Amino acid sequence: MPLPIITIGRSFGSGGRLIGKKVATLLNIPIYDRELVEMTAERSGFHHAVVEQMQQNRPVSLLYTLSTSALDVPLQDQVYFAQAKVIRELAEKGPCVFVGRCADSILEESHKVLEVFIHAPLEMRAERAEKVYKLQAKNFKDLVKKKDKARKAYYDYFTHRTWGKSDHYHLCINSAIGIDLAVDLIVRAAREMAEEE
Amino acid sequence: MPLPIITIGRSFGSGGRLIGKKVATLLNIPIYDRELVEMTAERSGFHHAVVEQMQQNRPVSLLYTLSTSALDVPLQDQVYFAQAKVIRELAEKGPCVFVGRCADSILEESHKVLEVFIHAPLEMRAERAEKVYKLQAKNFKDLVKKKDKARKAYYDYFTHRTWGKSDHYHLCINSAIGIDLAVDLIVRAAREMAEEE
Repeated sequence: MPLPIITIGRSFGSGGRLIGKKVATLLNIPIYDRELVEMTAERSGFHHAVVEQMQQNRPVSLLYTLSTSALDVPLQDQVYFAQAKVIRELAEKGPCVFVGRCADSILEESHKVLEVFIHAPLEMRAERAEKVYKLQAKNFKDLVKKKDKARKAYYDYFTHRTWGKSDHYHLCINSAIGIDLAVDLIVRAAREMAEEE
Repeated sequence: MPLPIITIGRSFGSGGRLIGKKVATLLNIPIYDRELVEMTAERSGFHHAVVEQMQQNRPVSLLYTLSTSALDVPLQDQVYFAQAKVIRELAEKGPCVFVGRCADSILEESHKVLEVFIHAPLEMRAERAEKVYKLQAKNFKDLVKKKDKARKAYYDYFTHRTWGKSDHYHLCINSAIGIDLAVDLIVRAAREMAEEE
């Protein structure tokens, strides 16, 4: 059996993207993360800045939704559905890694998926945001919390799930155990799933 | 470095205890689960049935607590503290596996601990309750949910954490990926943690 598709959700600053890259390299399969923005832009005709922006914002308020007519689909929803289509098409091509973008929920019914969530203690993530991502902020813990809040709001709005809730994933890993160990566990689980059937 | 102490929290029917046993066998370290009831009974003087019962009940209501004098320690708390003492003493002896009993929270400050949580889809757990544990129930899904509710209430009451919330653990594993794969990932993580320092 082929490898499963691997989806990696991650709290901000947990190193989830780096883990995804290393997993993809070791398994020799493609990884889609920010590339999806460009692909979605190309397919949908939306400017890539709009696609990017729509994913960083919390979903529009109910008030705004109610103020639009029932036939209007909010821009954020349009971008989401365009990206979901791109994700489904890529998944059809074969095993790969998706980082974020609700790919776990989008693919759960149609594909064999290993669903992973990466998290880490707040202090570690704040330090990573400052020193590895080299972001600017007055308070890095607040920045990390704000980013998490937006991710959770986006994910919970577009899926029937709760972001980061262990029940929804096959593996939740605290990257404090080590980036390479996290990579190793995911690779092992993926290979085992491929051998199983 | 020695192996870490491994704590395994688990939703009811997820196979967490079996996974714990297999991990302990592979690593050749002791496992403490129901044995703790007997040990706590011996040390504290409580009858083992009382110890058992106190852990299966949801914590006493606030109303009951308020009705007792400030100097009275509720029986459930007394049993908890007696068992926590036993857990700390056993942890001092060396690497081992603890299943449940809030051992993760009890040991987090004092020991090197690999904190694991095992869960599984409701359907799978209901089937396990019926066919593997051979329990009696009208509705096995309801039984599993009720048991989970009691575990969560007990854990949340005695720790500063939320039962099953991925943030609190190093590894959360859905045992639907396979009992032996779950065992393998835990063993691997434990060995890696031992090599690290």
